[in-house]
Order: sequence, then C-alpha cells, then structure tokens
Amino acid sequence: MGTGRIEAFSDGVIAVIITIMVLDFKIPADASWHALGALVPGLLVYALSFATIADFWINHHHTLAAAREPSATLMWSNLALLFAMSLVPFVTGWVASAHGSPLPVASYGVVMLAATLSFVVLGLVIAAQQPINSPARSTFRAFVRKGSVVAVCYALAIPLAYVSVVVSYTIFIAMPIFYILPMRIGGTD
Amino acid sequence: MGTGRIEAFSDGVIAVIITIMVLDFKIPADASWHALGALVPGLLVYALSFATIADFWINHHHTLAAAREPSATLMWSNLALLFAMSLVPFVTGWVASAHGSPLPVASYGVVMLAATLSFVVLGLVIAAQQPINSPARSTFRAFVRKGSVVAVCYALAIPLAYVSVVVSYTIFIAMPIFYILPMRIGGTD
Amino acid sequence: MGTGRIEAFSDGVIAVIITIMVLDFKIPADASWHALGALVPGLLVYALSFATIADFWINHHHTLAAAREPSATLMWSNLALLFAMSLVPFVTGWVASAHGSPLPVASYGVVMLAATLSFVVLGLVIAAQQPINSPARSTFRAFVRKGSVVAVCYALAIPLAYVSVVVSYTIFIAMPIFYILPMRIGGTD
Amino acid sequence: MGTGRIEAFSDGVIAVIITIMVLDFKIPADASWHALGALVPGLLVYALSFATIADFWINHHHTLAAAREPSATLMWSNLALLFAMSLVPFVTGWVASAHGSPLPVASYGVVMLAATLSFVVLGLVIAAQQPINSPARSTFRAFVRKGSVVAVCYALAIPLAYVSVVVSYTIFIAMPIFYILPMRIGGTD
Repeated sequence: MGTGRIEAFSDGVIAVIITIMVLDFKIPADASWHALGALVPGLLVYALSFATIADFWINHHHTLAAAREPSATLMWSNLALLFAMSLVPFVTGWVASAHGSPLPVASYGVVMLAATLSFVVLGLVIAAQQPINSPARSTFRAFVRKGSVVAVCYALAIPLAYVSVVVSYTIFIAMPIFYILPMRIGGTD
Repeated sequence: MGTGRIEAFSDGVIAVIITIMVLDFKIPADASWHALGALVPGLLVYALSFATIADFWINHHHTLAAAREPSATLMWSNLALLFAMSLVPFVTGWVASAHGSPLPVASYGVVMLAATLSFVVLGLVIAAQQPINSPARSTFRAFVRKGSVVAVCYALAIPLAYVSVVVSYTIFIAMPIFYILPMRIGGTD
Repeated sequence: MGTGRIEAFSDGVIAVIITIMVLDFKIPADASWHALGALVPGLLVYALSFATIADFWINHHHTLAAAREPSATLMWSNLALLFAMSLVPFVTGWVASAHGSPLPVASYGVVMLAATLSFVVLGLVIAAQQPINSPARSTFRAFVRKGSVVAVCYALAIPLAYVSVVVSYTIFIAMPIFYILPMRIGGTD
Repeated sequence: MGTGRIEAFSDGVIAVIITIMVLDFKIPADASWHALGALVPGLLVYALSFATIADFWINHHHTLAAAREPSATLMWSNLALLFAMSLVPFVTGWVASAHGSPLPVASYGVVMLAATLSFVVLGLVIAAQQPINSPARSTFRAFVRKGSVVAVCYALAIPLAYVSVVVSYTIFIAMPIFYILPMRIGGTD
C-alpha cells in the first residue's frame, strides 16, 4: 500500500492547482480584440506556471516512485511541496494583473523557491531510503544537486526583479526547460 | 507502473475542468423566469462543452490504454492537450456571455483546434509505439486520420465565425457527434 | 481495465461537485451573529445537497461495481448523470439565496429529476448486462423500480413548489433518507 | 474492492478542499508591500488550516487502511467528516478577513470540533471491526482516546474565543502538532 495513496493524493492536489489557475481569467466584459489582447500577458504567465507545475509533477512522479516507505519526513516534505505549489495560482494571478511591478515577480520567485527547496528535501529523504552505493542513490544525489541549482536560480530571481523583471522572467522560463532537458523521462535511473 | 499515473492525473485534471465550468453560472439576482431564461444560452454552451470534453475523455481513455511507455513526447503532448482543455471553461464562459459576437466563437474554435491537434500528436506518438503491421497500429492511424478531419473542421469554424456564428456553432455541435458515431466504444480495435 | 476508469473519473467529478458547492458561501462582510444567521438557510440547503449527492455516490458505487462492460450506453448515461449532478451547486446556491420563491425550488426538483432519470437508465443498462435469472438482475430491477419511485416524487415536487415550497422541501429531504433506508450498504445483492 | 473507493473518493474531496482554500486569496489591487502585508494574516490562517487538514488526511489514511468492511455507519461517519472538513475553507476565509473578532474564531472551533467528533465516531466504527484483543483494536482505542482529547480542546476553544482569541489560536495551532507528535507515521500498529 505504502506510498501509493500519497501519490494519488498529491496528484489530486496538483490536478486541482493546475486547473483552478484558469479561474483567474475573468471573462471579458465585451467581445473585442482589445479585451482579448488584455488577456495575453495573463495567458503567457498561466502557460509558464502550467509548464512549471507540469514539470514538478513529472519529477514528483519519478521521485515518489522510488520511495520505499512513507516516513513522517517524507509525508511532511511532500505536504510542504504541495503547500508551496498551492500558492502558485495566487502569484500567477498577481504577476498577470500587475505585470511590470517587481514585487509580484519577486513573490513568484519566493513561491517557486519554496517549492524547489521542499522538493530538494523530499529528494534527500528518498535518497536516504535507497541502498548505499546503489545506482538509484547516485541518481537521487544528482537530482538533489540539480534541484539545488534550480533553487539558487530562483533565489537570484527574487532580488533581480528589482533590477529588471525581464531577467527574472527569463530565469522563470529557463527553469522548467533546464529541469526537463537532461532528465530522461521514463526512467528514474 | 508506466502510464497508469498519467491516466490518473489526466482524469483528475479533466474532472476538475468539466466541473468548474458550472462556476460560471452566476446565481441570478432574483427568482424570476426572466432570470432563468437569461441562463439558457449559457446552459446550452455549457452542455456542448461538457459533451465535447466528455468525448475527449472517452477517446483519451482508449488512446492511453494502448500506450506502451510514458515517453517524453507522450508526456508533453498529453500536457499540451490538458493545457488546451483547461482553457475550455474560459471560452465557454465568454461565448455564453457574448453570444452573437464572432470573436468569442472564433476563440472557442482556436481552443478546440489546439486540443484536437494535441490529440493528433498524442495519437501519432502512441501509434508509433505499436508493433509494425499490428491491428492496433492501423486503428491508431485511423484515429489520427479522423482527428485530422476534426482539426480541419475546427480550423474552418474559426474564420467562418465572422461569416455566421451559426455555421461555427453547427460545426461545434457536429464534432462530438462525429467523434462518437463510428467509434465502437469498449474496444480500441 | 474496463469500468475502473469510469468509476475513478466519476469519483473525481463527484468529489469536485460536492466540494465546490461551499464556494457559494460568501464570507460575511462582518463578524456578527446576524451575518452568521443569514448563512443558516444556505447551510441547510448545502447539507441537503451534500447528503443527496453522497447518496447518489454510494448508489453509483454499488451500481458500477456490477457493470460488466463499458458500453456506449453505459458511458453516456453515466455522463448524463454527471452532467445533471454538475448543476446541483447552481440550483443549491439559487435555492439558498432566494428561499421562499417557487422557481428556484422547482429548478432544484428538475435537476434532481434529471439526475434520477439518468440513474434509472444507468441501472437498466447494467441490469441488462447481468445474466438472465441471476440474483444480481433482480437486485437491479428492484433498484430501477426504487429509482422510478424517486423520479416520480421529484417530478411531483416541481409543480408542488408553486403550491407550497415546504412540501417540495419535505420531498427533497425524504428522498435521500428513502434511498438509504432499505438498501443494505456493503452488498449489491 | 471494499474500502478502496471510499479512500479514493475521500482523497479527491480532501484534495479539492485543501486546494480551493487558496481561492480566498484575492489578488491585490496593487503591487505594493502594503497590499502584500495585508495578506499575511490570511496566509497564516491558511497555513494552519492546510496543516490541520493534512493532519486529518494522514490520520484518515491510517484509519481507513484498517477498515474491514464498508458498513453504512462507516460510510456515513466518513461523509460527516468530509462535510465538516468542507466547511474549513469558509471558516478559514472568515477568520482571515475578520481577525480579532471572536465569532469567526469560535465558528472555526465549531467546524474543527465537528470534524474531530466525526473522526472519533469513524475510529469507534473501525475499532469495532477489529478482532477482540487484537493489537489493532487497542491501537484504535488509543486513537479514539486521543481524538476525544482533541475534541475537548476544540470544544474549549469555542467559548475561550470570547475571553481571548489568542488562547483559541494557540489551541488551533497546538492541535495538529499534538496529533502528529506521538503517532508513528508509517504504521497503524
């Protein structure tokens, strides 16, 4: 039984998170191109958040598949991850409605940093559950190293929003791509 | 383990999408027949979107059941499909509130086209995973051909909204019926 | 594989329906007893809808467990049931906000009638899938008979709302109790 | 088949409950620190509710895993638990928007008390399903005793909100910690 229900519950939460983001798209008052154009920034931020959460989900899939027992640390680092992710719809909507202002962009970075750090802790917990010197253990160590790089990038994006939000946006867009690129999907080893 | 979690996650997302559409039905300010009548166009558009998404879901069910490995292309074409579908509540609400205007109707067509194209890519990916000359492979080729016809129809519905929204509506209503009719549900071959 | 995914998808939809109803409880503008008191009718209607949907869910559980193949009729009568149920949050909110007016109460009856009729069709489909003269077949015939009685009661509650909403409310409250009482939960036979 | 679908359905409902709470965070009208600061109390109450529901979920996981048959009492005490939990987003939003006022805080206590009492009944039902003198039975008796202590604390927090909301807050924060501390996660025995 073990970790199956944690996976199912996490999937449920992530499915709701990724879907309710669209509720922030208020239906325009009129049917003009101008009203549609006003939705474009929001749509782009939504697409970015969708891709980032999808990325988290794929990695979550690979990570939890290797979990050996649902320890308390695993449970709570997973819940911390879900909590951080649950704030993504809020910061997505805020960035979309106040684009150009540094504070929402920095807040977006804070939420992503929190999610990434929770993921790193989750990775460490599951790495420690693997047999010593096993390939799975070194895979997870690589996963944790990569997550740490991502965390540093998100951490940099926070103050950089006050220099230029474009730099922060670039980091936000680069992260899911960086996450995906080198990881072979379909195998945790 | 394989594709089971992808199915479960997709089901979760689709279940939320199909259900939160109803949140666009604002509770009328009064309890009059007039207020109820004002909801009728919205209810019809909602029923159409519900049937279309249900249709996507049934086809998704048959498609993913034949998937042999959760490759990266499969994962991302599936996520593209979910992303396109996640915009259905928005365009549904927009068409319902601005019925008669061509732009929301054309946008509805764009979202449905994007979803159908993602589905065609997903079908191609899974077709390529079937053994050469197997019946499953030819079934999937038929599925992809049919999806391409649907995509062309949705593509036509976009400019036609500027000629007559009734024509576009007719295409939107015809599509889920066309999808269902020839496919024997209960078997992918 | 069969009907498992239909059950899982239906569960997802029902879980969202039963939960988003609470979004209609607007947070009061102030923290007074008066504001809390104003929520009481809504809370009662919500509790009624929650119990009714829970009841549908329990029966759905028993019904689908006996399904032998996911035929097209089964699929679409199930989707009709989910569609009717998806309108419950709307009519619940309307009854709660316009209590005393007959039209919302009659609409509530219409939605419940539609859901019950879909359930009866679903029951007939699954009854027909059982071996002739099997105990399961006679159980399902009993289930369909009972559902028909419920449908007649809901049908009566619609015009009766214009005589007295209290009579309709009484029917709405009696239905889930009637549904539960004689059915032994834990066995479909 | 048994209790698996009850677990899956409960997980779906809890996943939606824990996620839609975030919809109460209205996107600020501007991008100022002041607007962000105004969200802090809401964020803290949200974090508390998230942790409490997560806690309920973990315990629910352990409790239902030991269920032997989906009896009617089990079904309905579980639904009572889900109903009480479904009101958590409402009271969370109310406490967050009216912090300092005793009535929302007391209402929060009432909802948590109702959820805890449903949990105690659920625990009693499942305890009675265990073999007499089995270790599982004594584990569940300990679980019920602990739940009763939690219920008494929540019951005290209700009138105490009129003495000092800080005392009630302290109880609310202490409860999930108390729940977790002595229970070894990863085993029901």
